[in-house]
Amino acid sequence: MNVPATAETPVDIAGVLDAHAERIEALLDRLLPDGEGPERPLLEAMRYACLDGGKRLRPYLVTATAALFGVDGERAARAAAAVEMLHCYSLIHDDLPAMDDDELRRGRPTCHIAFDEATAILAGDALLTLAFEVLADPATHDDADVRIELVRGLSGTAGAHGMVAGQMIDLAVEHRAVDAATVERLQALKTGALIAFSAEAGAILGEAGPDAHEAVLAYGRDLGRSFQIVDDLLDEEGDEEAMGKAVGKDATAGKATLVGVLGRDGARARAEELAERAIASLDRFGAAAETLRDVARFVVTRRT
Amino acid sequence: MNVPATAETPVDIAGVLDAHAERIEALLDRLLPDGEGPERPLLEAMRYACLDGGKRLRPYLVTATAALFGVDGERAARAAAAVEMLHCYSLIHDDLPAMDDDELRRGRPTCHIAFDEATAILAGDALLTLAFEVLADPATHDDADVRIELVRGLSGTAGAHGMVAGQMIDLAVEHRAVDAATVERLQALKTGALIAFSAEAGAILGEAGPDAHEAVLAYGRDLGRSFQIVDDLLDEEGDEEAMGKAVGKDATAGKATLVGVLGRDGARARAEELAERAIASLDRFGAAAETLRDVARFVVTRRT
Repeated sequence: MNVPATAETPVDIAGVLDAHAERIEALLDRLLPDGEGPERPLLEAMRYACLDGGKRLRPYLVTATAALFGVDGERAARAAAAVEMLHCYSLIHDDLPAMDDDELRRGRPTCHIAFDEATAILAGDALLTLAFEVLADPATHDDADVRIELVRGLSGTAGAHGMVAGQMIDLAVEHRAVDAATVERLQALKTGALIAFSAEAGAILGEAGPDAHEAVLAYGRDLGRSFQIVDDLLDEEGDEEAMGKAVGKDATAGKATLVGVLGRDGARARAEELAERAIASLDRFGAAAETLRDVARFVVTRRT
Repeated sequence: MNVPATAETPVDIAGVLDAHAERIEALLDRLLPDGEGPERPLLEAMRYACLDGGKRLRPYLVTATAALFGVDGERAARAAAAVEMLHCYSLIHDDLPAMDDDELRRGRPTCHIAFDEATAILAGDALLTLAFEVLADPATHDDADVRIELVRGLSGTAGAHGMVAGQMIDLAVEHRAVDAATVERLQALKTGALIAFSAEAGAILGEAGPDAHEAVLAYGRDLGRSFQIVDDLLDEEGDEEAMGKAVGKDATAGKATLVGVLGRDGARARAEELAERAIASLDRFGAAAETLRDVARFVVTRRT
């Protein structure tokens, strides 16, 4: 492996992510609706699914790439929170009985188990909608052109040519023999697209020139693909308690993964190759992009 | 009833709606994704749920109010199509087994019956997302400020303070004694908000001044509430074949309706009062708003 996991990786990238996650958590808490009345279970379910969870990798990518372009951190954090809301909606719906039928997520019962199926579907719908509402708010950026580019980017990423298509394909090819190209397309849509957009959002917020924009987008694309392969490896090798979700489930469910197609060693080599390419995409930014490189190194060496 | 249903109502308002529906149909057909590959059932389900259906009242309101402000019809039609996509998503999700568990819609099997539950959930998600993508596209309006106002308006209308909250309340108060105020709030959120936004969208597209904006919004709000009451009356009194969906279902399902709270006569009087007030909101526009007045008259006299 040519991605130096010990020499150049600061020991505290996990700490950097944790500190960032705390800030995003506080912002999500402020942005998520709260209130009384008969709709209260909906608001509780949205908060349940969105708060106290995860590494917050996607919002970190938004704020870290935005910082490359000198964007105000508070504003970037709003776009980052919108991306995380979109991510949480996709998890709620993917976990539903009609989809992947998962009962455990981030170490806790999934949303439809903690509430009920109707409330979970609605909480997902409302989080998806809120993501666009947050992006469209003038507090996210003064310039309407920037905000509308974020809405265009996120809607393209999330919809029938992006994440939703990825989930549809994921269900459609269960228990079927698939080739590596199909798995890579599925994962590029289902997981890769939002990770790529997270990096791109920083360039949109920072009104980056086309070359710099393309560079962070290329970084995000390769990072997203690498991330998903490692996710699949951890599903095979990982520790259920540390992961906070059921492991070994992909094989049982007949899920199409690159581990299944390329084997563990092949899949790990592919993840490392993609992470290296992601790192190389950032050459033009010099030392300013070091934490983004660290993230790529973290993604392929993480144990959860 | 002071809403003149025969004297001033042109006999062909239904014809006007039909002709408009054909144009929206053609545009939806162009805007909805199509393609091959393993995601094809998703694309088919989106088209199934969005095409060949309904009176297209909401998109008609968008284009008719936009015309009041001199907006180009082609562009208004794109915003109108986005509103209809949002509406169709809400129907798909409301019909799901975990929600209202409906098997018939617009005279055909509901989306989860024609496809399956997972595909229906995803088709709804993708239509909701596509609505924002269409609004954000420069083809909808040259000015990013106008497009972002449309996104803000639609997301506020659709989310946890709007339609999704309405559906949550609808489920929460089933089989419970509720007062008229609760039913009116529920319906204002679940159905009224999108009808109100449909009228408002024309004002946003036309960059109307605050008074004119408020006037069409007030029209839309009252029209939306009137529409829902008539819907509930038709559910009690209507003809299943003409309606294209099961009737008498609200009472069986213990749904909260104003018919239940006020009785049929009280509910009809309330619907007519709201339609009259909607019509009065349009006074400032004179003859130019006559088709919008006709729509209000149509809404309270319709049989399907």
